[in-house]
Amino acid sequence: MGLSIFYTLPARFFGASIAAFMVIFISMADITSIFSQLGAILSPDRVLTSPEDLIPYSFDATAVLSQRPRAVAFAENVEEVSRVVRWANETRTPLVVRGSGTGLAGGSIPSPDSVVLCLSRFDKILELDRRNLTMMVEPGVTTQAIFDRADQAGLLYPPDPGSMKISTIGGNVASNSGGLRGLKYGVTKDYVMGFELVLASGEVVWIGNKCVKDVAGYSLREVFIGSGGTLGIFTKILLRLLPKPAAKRTLLAVYSRMEDAAETVSAIIAHPIIPCTLEFLDRTTIHCVEDYAKVGLPLEAEAILLMETDGHPAVIAEEAEIMAQLARKRGALEVRVAETVEEAQRLATARRSAFAALARVAPTTILEDVTVPRSELAGMVGFIQELAKRHNLRIGIFGHMGDGNLHPTFLTNEKDEAEMHRVELAFSEIVTEAVRRGGTITGEHGVGLAKKKFLPESVGGLNVEIMRKLKRLFDPNLILNPGKMFDC
Amino acid sequence: MGLSIFYTLPARFFGASIAAFMVIFISMADITSIFSQLGAILSPDRVLTSPEDLIPYSFDATAVLSQRPRAVAFAENVEEVSRVVRWANETRTPLVVRGSGTGLAGGSIPSPDSVVLCLSRFDKILELDRRNLTMMVEPGVTTQAIFDRADQAGLLYPPDPGSMKISTIGGNVASNSGGLRGLKYGVTKDYVMGFELVLASGEVVWIGNKCVKDVAGYSLREVFIGSGGTLGIFTKILLRLLPKPAAKRTLLAVYSRMEDAAETVSAIIAHPIIPCTLEFLDRTTIHCVEDYAKVGLPLEAEAILLMETDGHPAVIAEEAEIMAQLARKRGALEVRVAETVEEAQRLATARRSAFAALARVAPTTILEDVTVPRSELAGMVGFIQELAKRHNLRIGIFGHMGDGNLHPTFLTNEKDEAEMHRVELAFSEIVTEAVRRGGTITGEHGVGLAKKKFLPESVGGLNVEIMRKLKRLFDPNLILNPGKMFDC
Repeated sequence: MGLSIFYTLPARFFGASIAAFMVIFISMADITSIFSQLGAILSPDRVLTSPEDLIPYSFDATAVLSQRPRAVAFAENVEEVSRVVRWANETRTPLVVRGSGTGLAGGSIPSPDSVVLCLSRFDKILELDRRNLTMMVEPGVTTQAIFDRADQAGLLYPPDPGSMKISTIGGNVASNSGGLRGLKYGVTKDYVMGFELVLASGEVVWIGNKCVKDVAGYSLREVFIGSGGTLGIFTKILLRLLPKPAAKRTLLAVYSRMEDAAETVSAIIAHPIIPCTLEFLDRTTIHCVEDYAKVGLPLEAEAILLMETDGHPAVIAEEAEIMAQLARKRGALEVRVAETVEEAQRLATARRSAFAALARVAPTTILEDVTVPRSELAGMVGFIQELAKRHNLRIGIFGHMGDGNLHPTFLTNEKDEAEMHRVELAFSEIVTEAVRRGGTITGEHGVGLAKKKFLPESVGGLNVEIMRKLKRLFDPNLILNPGKMFDC
Repeated sequence: MGLSIFYTLPARFFGASIAAFMVIFISMADITSIFSQLGAILSPDRVLTSPEDLIPYSFDATAVLSQRPRAVAFAENVEEVSRVVRWANETRTPLVVRGSGTGLAGGSIPSPDSVVLCLSRFDKILELDRRNLTMMVEPGVTTQAIFDRADQAGLLYPPDPGSMKISTIGGNVASNSGGLRGLKYGVTKDYVMGFELVLASGEVVWIGNKCVKDVAGYSLREVFIGSGGTLGIFTKILLRLLPKPAAKRTLLAVYSRMEDAAETVSAIIAHPIIPCTLEFLDRTTIHCVEDYAKVGLPLEAEAILLMETDGHPAVIAEEAEIMAQLARKRGALEVRVAETVEEAQRLATARRSAFAALARVAPTTILEDVTVPRSELAGMVGFIQELAKRHNLRIGIFGHMGDGNLHPTFLTNEKDEAEMHRVELAFSEIVTEAVRRGGTITGEHGVGLAKKKFLPESVGGLNVEIMRKLKRLFDPNLILNPGKMFDC
């Protein structure tokens, strides 16, 4: 069996469910064989197997987790993807599809002994159909490129995950990504009209069409959207676009109490106004962002609320005025209305850079993603603040307040065992509290590896059993991203 | 085996796929046994078995199709539904769930030897949650009651199928119903956040929550929504509501050429304006509606377009003005803007009464439901008009032009064998043409029995095979509405 490479995964944080990942042996003979097989299917220059080449594909944007694959292969069209999948299915080789690796739940961390199939070079925009307001793209196109192409045509592709500059649309669809505009515009699945999909058998199927209504048989789209590469591989995606809003107004409200910010959000929704963005940052995040991005945030604030309304100029002027009034009535110390596009962009940048800013100040940043019904927001934020004190932890909180989607962010150090133990306890408590309040363990990052042990608690054992049955139905040999979401 | 009741189904129209439905024998001994078993599960006064009592449950709103069930049972809560399903699963009795029976694709026509489970008395509105903009309802609540309850609270439940005054929400969710507001607001599935579901095993599962974002595991919601009672039975439904638009403007444009109406629709979308309603009626439909509802429609017109925009008063005033201009530029003979709420309602009534009006003028009315990408609308309407001439048939066309969703309506007589043969040919040609143009065989009515032979042509054989596998996964004994959509 030749020389063996041995490596470990610092995976204890996420618990027993991925204990099997911790020690892996890979034989050099195996790697040579995989290299020649994949090289024949694709071409040798599109297969990586040397340890130093594999390192960048051993992790995604999730803290703590990593796992080296056996090989990395690059496919650039549907025939290549199908051939690789057929080979994987015949040889029972786990296949982990990835784009830019911006996932935050470990969804594209290689499975043990897996081949990573990277689709970032499968990246053409194929069609923009102005009459039907659709765009057809390949999976490796970045979210930003899609947004830009629509924008040039006077149209809007709304989903805007935090990593949109580099994240790929295939990953967005596989994760059903959210973003900052979710409150008004929804999430990725609301903009996917159809796709070409490679099944675990290697068969290629087309699901959906350009019709805005279609009830011909079961709706198969949504099972695959958000399935995290565990049920099939997207090779072409048909997206729905919207008319571009004529104008946008950006406001920033500053609070001395987090509850006041949450009350403002409730008052805006109850008014009712549905702004495109209702984001907040807590004190810790404000300080980190200001230190990082120098946008002039008020350092004395306990919370800031970033509000954006888009649409007809008359409407947004009126809505901005009402939102400002509601914020002041709920105790905002100050409400700034951006006077110029540059000022609006600077404020939006403050929110967009929150994660990067927090990540600078501690060796390890663990980003949470619980979501609660909007009515539970203030209570949930209060719970997390109290929890941070109780466990003596630094937790920055920011998130999509209008969606009830919070990102409590642990600023910690994975080498500090005692602190990591407290982080683990606090992490669990946050999840349990969100579920208790009628929420979910993940609003937009997905389950992947990071949340799999909490899935039964979130959706119930019977639902997980249904998911397992679906997995076995679509991928009987368990080759597609095995071990993610749940075990089979 | 006692006395047998014999009856036939005039089902030849929909072809060989339901030939098995045509002659059925039911033994009286069987019926007595079913009556006593169901009577014990529910109570004797909630079970019907006498032939005259079964007649109203032998058909829905679909022309031509009917089939008498063995019994009808009324369940009023989840425990009763679960007990009936367990019994059906154990005794392998086909179970056909229905509400008001307003379906237009034969989806709630009893299967041979089936028990109809009627949920129209399971009809409470359980909660309206203003802070989260949700409503929890039982499946037998009418769509109109949901709309009204939301409206009273200053909120909007957008899906408005033509039969909304009597259709039940359980049926709407099972059919993923559309309506007149689909262009701007989408369809039923866009407003279903969660539901309680009885599986074929009798197990009860809850899927979804009040979170506006949730990616915890596979999205199971959409597989069940629109599954036509073949995968599970909804016993509680959590609906999403919207803020009620502040105002609405209704316009009517009159054309001497159908193509001009279609061009107007394209111009409005390309502008881009997304009105809440863009409905049209052709000459045949205009005459029938005017004769029926006396709303003052222009009888000299070849087509009329009913346009509605809702939202902020300033925006709708501007949009209405632009839509009127675009209509005139595309050759509208006349554009009326409703001056009062009453006038707007009268115009909306014209469209809402189209099907009823057409149904009066011929013994048999067969309503089609093909949908094409919007860019294919004008061509599709032209094709149907040419087809009507070629086959010497009367076809009224109306529909949701903004959605590309057409309702060509055959005005015929099922007793005229020669004409029915031509109807059958024309029906097939319409379906094939819609699919050729990138469309679907059904935009909002569903597959049921009426379209099952066309399903493979519409979605492809591999997709039907996936649907069959899902059916067998969720309903291994094939007791839930068997024989609908496809055969297993």
